[in-house]
Amino acid sequence: MKQVTINDLFWGKQQKLILENVIPFQWGALNDAIPDIEPSHAIENFRIAAGEKQGDYYGRVFQDSDLAKWLETVGYALTLQKDEALEQLADKAIELIGRAQQPDGYLNTYFTVSKPGQRWTNLRDDHELYCAGHMIEAAVSYYEATGKSRLLDIVIRFVEHISSVLGAEPGKKRGYPGHPEIELALMKLYRVTGDKRHLELCSYFVDERGQHPHFFDLEADERGDAVKLHRGRYPYSYSQSHLPVREQLATDGHSVRAMYLYSGMADLAAELGDASLFNACRELWSNLIGARMYITGGIGSSEYGEAFTFDYDLPNDIAYAETCASIGLVFWAHRMLQCDTRNEYADVMERALYNGVMSGMSLDGKKYFYVNPLEIWPESCELREDRKRSRLKTTRQHWWGCACCPPNIARLVASLGDYIYSYNPTNREWFVHLYMGSKVVQLLDGQHVELSQTTNYPWDGNVDFSISMEGQSEFTLALRLPGWCRSAQLWVNGEAMEISESSVNGYVKLHRSWTNGDCVKLALDMPIEIIRAIPKLRAAAGKAALQRGPIVFCLEETDNGANLPDICLSSEPKLTAHYEEQTLNGVSVITGAAFRSDPTSADGQLYSTAPTKKVPVQIKAVPYFAWCNREPGEMQVWIRE
Amino acid sequence: MKQVTINDLFWGKQQKLILENVIPFQWGALNDAIPDIEPSHAIENFRIAAGEKQGDYYGRVFQDSDLAKWLETVGYALTLQKDEALEQLADKAIELIGRAQQPDGYLNTYFTVSKPGQRWTNLRDDHELYCAGHMIEAAVSYYEATGKSRLLDIVIRFVEHISSVLGAEPGKKRGYPGHPEIELALMKLYRVTGDKRHLELCSYFVDERGQHPHFFDLEADERGDAVKLHRGRYPYSYSQSHLPVREQLATDGHSVRAMYLYSGMADLAAELGDASLFNACRELWSNLIGARMYITGGIGSSEYGEAFTFDYDLPNDIAYAETCASIGLVFWAHRMLQCDTRNEYADVMERALYNGVMSGMSLDGKKYFYVNPLEIWPESCELREDRKRSRLKTTRQHWWGCACCPPNIARLVASLGDYIYSYNPTNREWFVHLYMGSKVVQLLDGQHVELSQTTNYPWDGNVDFSISMEGQSEFTLALRLPGWCRSAQLWVNGEAMEISESSVNGYVKLHRSWTNGDCVKLALDMPIEIIRAIPKLRAAAGKAALQRGPIVFCLEETDNGANLPDICLSSEPKLTAHYEEQTLNGVSVITGAAFRSDPTSADGQLYSTAPTKKVPVQIKAVPYFAWCNREPGEMQVWIRE
Repeated sequence: MKQVTINDLFWGKQQKLILENVIPFQWGALNDAIPDIEPSHAIENFRIAAGEKQGDYYGRVFQDSDLAKWLETVGYALTLQKDEALEQLADKAIELIGRAQQPDGYLNTYFTVSKPGQRWTNLRDDHELYCAGHMIEAAVSYYEATGKSRLLDIVIRFVEHISSVLGAEPGKKRGYPGHPEIELALMKLYRVTGDKRHLELCSYFVDERGQHPHFFDLEADERGDAVKLHRGRYPYSYSQSHLPVREQLATDGHSVRAMYLYSGMADLAAELGDASLFNACRELWSNLIGARMYITGGIGSSEYGEAFTFDYDLPNDIAYAETCASIGLVFWAHRMLQCDTRNEYADVMERALYNGVMSGMSLDGKKYFYVNPLEIWPESCELREDRKRSRLKTTRQHWWGCACCPPNIARLVASLGDYIYSYNPTNREWFVHLYMGSKVVQLLDGQHVELSQTTNYPWDGNVDFSISMEGQSEFTLALRLPGWCRSAQLWVNGEAMEISESSVNGYVKLHRSWTNGDCVKLALDMPIEIIRAIPKLRAAAGKAALQRGPIVFCLEETDNGANLPDICLSSEPKLTAHYEEQTLNGVSVITGAAFRSDPTSADGQLYSTAPTKKVPVQIKAVPYFAWCNREPGEMQVWIRE
Repeated sequence: MKQVTINDLFWGKQQKLILENVIPFQWGALNDAIPDIEPSHAIENFRIAAGEKQGDYYGRVFQDSDLAKWLETVGYALTLQKDEALEQLADKAIELIGRAQQPDGYLNTYFTVSKPGQRWTNLRDDHELYCAGHMIEAAVSYYEATGKSRLLDIVIRFVEHISSVLGAEPGKKRGYPGHPEIELALMKLYRVTGDKRHLELCSYFVDERGQHPHFFDLEADERGDAVKLHRGRYPYSYSQSHLPVREQLATDGHSVRAMYLYSGMADLAAELGDASLFNACRELWSNLIGARMYITGGIGSSEYGEAFTFDYDLPNDIAYAETCASIGLVFWAHRMLQCDTRNEYADVMERALYNGVMSGMSLDGKKYFYVNPLEIWPESCELREDRKRSRLKTTRQHWWGCACCPPNIARLVASLGDYIYSYNPTNREWFVHLYMGSKVVQLLDGQHVELSQTTNYPWDGNVDFSISMEGQSEFTLALRLPGWCRSAQLWVNGEAMEISESSVNGYVKLHRSWTNGDCVKLALDMPIEIIRAIPKLRAAAGKAALQRGPIVFCLEETDNGANLPDICLSSEPKLTAHYEEQTLNGVSVITGAAFRSDPTSADGQLYSTAPTKKVPVQIKAVPYFAWCNREPGEMQVWIRE
């Protein structure tokens, strides 16, 4: 990421938003300095744990992780742009964390303040290892950004403490986290420290999961708890601990837990060259992508347990599709791509990123969706008592008591440079996974090679690359051919190239000796696509979704009037796309021909034998990620046809 | 009803089922003599209240009403058919009730056994007046059937006690029932006793409702309860007590409460000639029929509060549509018809009866639905945790802990003779509201006139009437022209009549001097109708329902394979109906042309730009009321077109 600079209008703007608005806003929230939002108390908890304040712990058991995610984001932000004031704030927060760390290395304000004698007694529910994971990610990020090792030292001590308590060795508890996260964090830590013990601890957590006798039962027995369910309600599949991970075939349970676990598994499989573990990841991937993912890259179709349900159960209005789950899917897809460079992984990563993730945040970066449905009828959400209690809201909220999503978007967008390129030194392949205006520098044979990418993506599919270096260098430039793209053209220094001959696994590979000033032009045809779902997906029966490039579109009431389900695409909808500078901070919109019922033709009867007359209307669809940034109202992705 | 005998295949069979199977089964249930069903304890509660047994009260606060409904049904059954053994059982049960009545006339086993000092302290939640209402209905039914006044005397004493405690007079509590029911029961009682005080008590309950200061608040204050909500959760609209009844414009709250209240209101309006009260009924009726009723006559679209939600919110899969609510709608529609003879009331009565009510009971009378959705995907109900807890079941159940629906169906079907005809002596109009094979006798000018109705309804629309009497008599025979019927022919003694000229408010009126042997033949065209909903009803957008005569049809998985939402009617579906003797105890079925996705044409991708090929299929639709009497599986009323 240090080698990557994003400089386009789309993501550059998003990163600027994170730096200028989101990071200060979230710091305010962590310090309870923002009026009219649910209190966080995260900083205050650390002060109390450090013995510097009196008071009670407040918040979820995982409140520490909000500060950790903020620090992780700050690390990425400081990589993008020097900011001494911000760095000083972060340093102070890190010092506070250090003071809250216990003499034996233990670090968790919830247990330190509220349950001092009960550490490691409920790994299933109490998120100690989850918070540890986020703190490790923060430490790695901050260290890589600043070179400062204070937080890294803190978490290394904490990991030493964890290793002294948990593990397969005699005298240790054979525990593992109820909420996976530390696995992928330990992999990051290992890559910084090179300390094999960090890799081994990750490996232990991954493979111990779901073994029998079940650890969560053993610790429940020790606590004297009769009920052996997550949070008293959910089965062990909720935390993907119902089976050893290599035996799991379906993406079950809490969707964020699943994504974090699978990410750690993919990291570990890559690091160890563990084919059986990677195959387990493949099985899970196939199930998710083939039967359990919304077209937006949203995942987890049930609020109960924030969980997956079963194959093809993807209702639009009661979708859960938590923002964090789509972020987790980006993490996992990115890691799958590191193991096995196939465009399908990058396609899903891109789908989740441009749709299910970005819908989680308002265009001004100040409001968030926790739940991302594909259809909203506000009256139903607001008037039906069975829906009022849902986390599903008809408009984005400033902050959430369970504030996992806002900082999660922030850290992903700030670190997006990590996701665009990769380089495989073994066969000197330089991959471009995502099309974003950016520059990247790679050290090849002792010289810095700069690859510049210029594009209006996602609004058009033309991408220009130019290479800047002093001498020459032989390598392969591998450009992703997105799955959504049915036709593309390619030129190297103006000379048209045959794409199909040089494509492997969805990447076109240009192998040559490159030199300064070389130019590559990729033109991805980006027509409007009418997408249908597999017939088993009932929620989309008889309906189509509009997609252009990676962007999934939706209808909003503000453009199309109320009662969106009444709209039916024409058989020849003559869809056209154009860019509107003034709409939603600048987006492409799709217009086309559709029909609506003629209200004057109806006889006013609730049920009638008289067919309703149809009248032609023009519809206007906007990118799903940008919905609900104007007048609140109805929204729908799938349109009748 | 005493003058009516139903003798056709359809309803005759249903009544036989009630007499032979349902009454004995339910008696067993009330006596906890049926294995493997939830215990009732209703009889036992009376024994304990009578001091003849030791033990605790068990069951809902309204458990007494199950015995009352059974006795009411027995009354109707004994009218239909003498049965000395049954009458002895009922007499014994009535004696038991008498022994459980307290010296001051009070009668309620829950309070007598469990809360002896707390009578009339929570009218809002505790159902004392509701149970009283059902006991009154039982008493009237049994008295009318047998001439025995034992139960009538019991309830008259109870009503005297109620009048001494509740009322507008000084020193009384200005209370009224949290669950309406006693209002319509008092009207029945008044019609038997002629005692004005019974009418006045009904009138008081109706008009006191929703007055301020709110009685339910006052009694909550007396109890020291801080929370002023029904059952701690529901607003006063739940019991239609949010406003005085004459100011209520929308059918809000608990749907069964609403139907029972509106029934009592209509009764009272008719009795008193109270135009303002009838106008209130009209407003509520228009709202229900225009915006809140399922095509099946199901009402109440939310399980939360078993309640109405808001206009046009009629989801198919999470419909509540409690069987008892459709029964209540039959009651109300029947009473509206008594006030104002318009076919729209009879149409709705018929719609609810043939669809939403009868779907509540299995064809063998042994299993019941509490909830009657218009679409079922069993996997969703069984695997989605957010739906598992619902009263919605994918198959009918033997009995319910809250056993309101089974005896409610029984009493309605057994008393169906009440709903077919009415006679208005003022202008000598003899109305036929429902077409069912039956005989009815009316005393006209001192002689018994018998009207015989012969028909295969609802399977065809031909109805033959013949008149049998000794002399001649001048009266009007008024035959309902169902709203579903677009064309009908009529003959009197073989001579074709012009219908339109003699129709008033949807009834064709034949005024003449009738004599023995006169024949009337009515031929109602009964083609298959393709019904569409008003465009505001989103759950039916782009869909059609099939109806023939009063019968709403549905698709079942057992006839059409799984994944019913994939089915799309052809633009010319060439629908035909035929009677199948062997199917579902003999029903008409509809077959026609439709399309399904060709699974072999799909590329297996969850989302794809490749349009799915369609293949033609034949669909088979069966009457909605008869669904789920074969292999359990998917069901759906609204079909894509």
